[in-house]
Amino acid sequence: MTLTKYTKLGVVGAGSMGSMMAQLFAEAGPGVSIFDVKGDNVEIAVGLSEKNDAIKGKVKGFKDYGAFMASPPSPGHRLLVFSITHGEPADEVLDSLRPHLAKGDIILDGGNEWYQNTERRRRELKREQNVDYIGMGVSGGYQSARHGPSLSPGGDSAAIQRVMPLLEKVSAKAEDGSPCVTRIGPGGSGHYVKMVHNGIEQGMMGAVAEAWGLLRFNLGMKLDEIGEVFKQWSATPELKNTFLIDIGIDICQKRDCSLGKFGASDNENHVISTIVDKVVQDADDTEGTGTWSVAEAARLHVSSPTIAASHFLRLASADRAARLKINENLKLPAALVTPRTTLDAEAKAQLVEDVRQSVIASFLSVFAQGLQLIARQSEKEGWDVSLVSCLKIWRAGCIISSDGLSAVLADVAADFDAGASKANGSALGSATSHPKDASATIPAHTRLTRPLAATFPALRRTILWSLERNACAPTLSATLEWVKYIGAPVLPTMFMEAQLDWFGAHSFERWSSEAGSKGGIVQKGSEHYEWKPA
Amino acid sequence: MTLTKYTKLGVVGAGSMGSMMAQLFAEAGPGVSIFDVKGDNVEIAVGLSEKNDAIKGKVKGFKDYGAFMASPPSPGHRLLVFSITHGEPADEVLDSLRPHLAKGDIILDGGNEWYQNTERRRRELKREQNVDYIGMGVSGGYQSARHGPSLSPGGDSAAIQRVMPLLEKVSAKAEDGSPCVTRIGPGGSGHYVKMVHNGIEQGMMGAVAEAWGLLRFNLGMKLDEIGEVFKQWSATPELKNTFLIDIGIDICQKRDCSLGKFGASDNENHVISTIVDKVVQDADDTEGTGTWSVAEAARLHVSSPTIAASHFLRLASADRAARLKINENLKLPAALVTPRTTLDAEAKAQLVEDVRQSVIASFLSVFAQGLQLIARQSEKEGWDVSLVSCLKIWRAGCIISSDGLSAVLADVAADFDAGASKANGSALGSATSHPKDASATIPAHTRLTRPLAATFPALRRTILWSLERNACAPTLSATLEWVKYIGAPVLPTMFMEAQLDWFGAHSFERWSSEAGSKGGIVQKGSEHYEWKPA
Repeated sequence: MTLTKYTKLGVVGAGSMGSMMAQLFAEAGPGVSIFDVKGDNVEIAVGLSEKNDAIKGKVKGFKDYGAFMASPPSPGHRLLVFSITHGEPADEVLDSLRPHLAKGDIILDGGNEWYQNTERRRRELKREQNVDYIGMGVSGGYQSARHGPSLSPGGDSAAIQRVMPLLEKVSAKAEDGSPCVTRIGPGGSGHYVKMVHNGIEQGMMGAVAEAWGLLRFNLGMKLDEIGEVFKQWSATPELKNTFLIDIGIDICQKRDCSLGKFGASDNENHVISTIVDKVVQDADDTEGTGTWSVAEAARLHVSSPTIAASHFLRLASADRAARLKINENLKLPAALVTPRTTLDAEAKAQLVEDVRQSVIASFLSVFAQGLQLIARQSEKEGWDVSLVSCLKIWRAGCIISSDGLSAVLADVAADFDAGASKANGSALGSATSHPKDASATIPAHTRLTRPLAATFPALRRTILWSLERNACAPTLSATLEWVKYIGAPVLPTMFMEAQLDWFGAHSFERWSSEAGSKGGIVQKGSEHYEWKPA
Repeated sequence: MTLTKYTKLGVVGAGSMGSMMAQLFAEAGPGVSIFDVKGDNVEIAVGLSEKNDAIKGKVKGFKDYGAFMASPPSPGHRLLVFSITHGEPADEVLDSLRPHLAKGDIILDGGNEWYQNTERRRRELKREQNVDYIGMGVSGGYQSARHGPSLSPGGDSAAIQRVMPLLEKVSAKAEDGSPCVTRIGPGGSGHYVKMVHNGIEQGMMGAVAEAWGLLRFNLGMKLDEIGEVFKQWSATPELKNTFLIDIGIDICQKRDCSLGKFGASDNENHVISTIVDKVVQDADDTEGTGTWSVAEAARLHVSSPTIAASHFLRLASADRAARLKINENLKLPAALVTPRTTLDAEAKAQLVEDVRQSVIASFLSVFAQGLQLIARQSEKEGWDVSLVSCLKIWRAGCIISSDGLSAVLADVAADFDAGASKANGSALGSATSHPKDASATIPAHTRLTRPLAATFPALRRTILWSLERNACAPTLSATLEWVKYIGAPVLPTMFMEAQLDWFGAHSFERWSSEAGSKGGIVQKGSEHYEWKPA
């Protein structure tokens, strides 16, 4: 159980994440062998480590599978860290490595893999070669991969225990010094939780980007000024030390004279002003997690419109040529980039505060949707994932970290965990409609409903204003609609239900039934009305 | 190639769809043997046909696989029509039938099956028993299953040709008399197109239900009055003979004294007033198509927020107990069911017209999203699906049929088909950013952009008004946001792109590049800025 087991380890994949992890592990002690099918990447990775006196000579590059696998000292005691593109590329690399693997070796897959691929590989490697395969989320991007990421390993308990001392050493540390790593659960649970982390990340990024757009395009604020606003937001209790707000300060204010004056609307050499509005990584399949999160929300029946709205905005952004063509044909009565508003200082301050509260509401909604997704999948697969543990490893090193949000969510997670561990006696309240699925009541927790109610008027004003200005706010607006309907005692869906019964004999409940008075369980009604004899 | 081949056929599954199809086929000529694992269903189905003099004695019931399979005259010439729940239940029934199947038999699966299950069964049955398996969408609900549904068979060309005369006989007929059935393509394409049909249906139903809710709860209109409004809408060119509007008239106006006075807000024995607002069939997995449509939109990267928004509203509606709990805790400042508005006649008429235009915008958006999904999957799988054919079979007998919408969409489909058949020379314009994927430019077609632009001001007013009244309008509001961003020359996603590059080195394009000026292809930019040295 000691680090000495891994005096040397192998990193497979020398992209931006892999090369950073190589340096991170080397600093933690072990020598690192790094391999990539692209030889250039290996040279860059080794070159980077050579520039760092602390690890000079500790990272060795390999372009050949055999030599690479011979380099970590003893077969059966090798630790191989994967940082490869998910799906087929990872399968191909694994196939090439398999002849070289020996019983007792451990593969720690740190890529963003689809959890079912993780489970398939884990089963095959265990059965055929007695090799352990651990699917581990590595969050925080290349920046954290270099200095300490948030880690979510899932898989065989004993295997994870063997690598845990090393993972604890390299992981990010929360303010209290505790490492941001824990065993999530069996099977593909580690990669699943990372997938949802990225789904939450997508939703949060949609909200921040739209907030930025409102301040920039519709309120006409200067970039530096927005940076100052973000600085203030990150000091408020609800958004305290929120990573995506914090880096927003930098993004608003960073200048670089060497870039020239590309900015269409800004001439102060701000880097952000040079960047095209295309987010391509979902649409080109290089990133799977956002895509899978939306698909999983559908599969597991978790109402997640905020996450989906942000995802669909990203997709549309990717195809800028289509947008320009549509713009040309659409000829909307008012241009989307409307003239900037002139508001007096007080009105402007109110609006900025409204936008801040809208961001809070969206962040909380996205977390509620994401936590529900983890909880429901965990229940379905019998993973027994602790939401408290998820929140703990998300405290530092990762993209969705936020002291403010963590404080709100801690009680929600603790009550969920306590309830999930009791059979049919959720601490979240007895009104749970899925007797075995307390996830349904996560958004009902008062620690969530209170801030959602408190921010509701501001969110509503923001969306009204954004509509008046023809701004782009799909994520924020999806949040508002979600908050309204998840807590609506009466929805227009009774008309939908009537239609389904009219043409499909899908049957319904009557208001006089238990479903009408107390809500009932999630089960089809038994009444059918023969609207038109078939 | 004649009907005589099928003087007798077997229907497997005697639920609401199967029992209606048994009668439909019996009327078309063949004798029908009907089987169900639930014996009660069989008795009901046979009983129904016995009441119909035209087919009396022609429908025979079976509760035993062997006897059922011996009843259609000759092995190898049997036609078995499936109407069973998708997934495992269908697999189980098929497994039980397999010992009785003979080379040359045809199975016509009329359930809502996941297309990959269809393809697996098709392959296995062909290989192992030389039996043809045709996945066929049957649209229109039990009402159309009785009198003529819209049919979308997909699979082996020769097998479909053998059953086509019968299908043409039983299918719905368009106004010009042509049958609403065509071979969609190979593999699981028939079931796939039906899945998207149902995704479109879900989006449309969200829009109509929200429109109904606005008129009913927020404008305070009487049910009969809303029925009259729907009657007027169905006579306007854009919504002419739209099935979901037409049955809305009936749903608003149908009274039944025998039901008692359940209506919370209505005492005139309207049936709709007795119906609880829970739509459960997605959440309980009895219906897969809406769930799959959202997941497929994610997988194939088709920005489909309107379809998704309606789906997520349905999911939330299903869990009424959770809603009541959230409502209790949320204590929103204004109740969702707000006091009804008192407006003068002119203002009211304007609002109703605004809502009508919002419904048109949503319907067109949902169709654009759905057609893109079919087009992209067809391209990916090499199915060569004709969108013109899809629209043709949707002209009658199905839930999404609409003369008004068909007229708008016909040119879009024709131009897409013409473009897709040419290599890289889409009739939709040369700006296509996916050189091999003309689907991206479907929403750019002027036949769509013109009505979307025309309805935009009304849609915007509707959403503003719905926000003021705290109404529930996620589907309509998702439409508005989608229309804004798919045609936006500048989106706040540049901030998202900067963030991804900051923490993930995901790279970007500069405005000075081709992507900045002309949009470029859907491909990651090559620039990275080292915001903070890692």
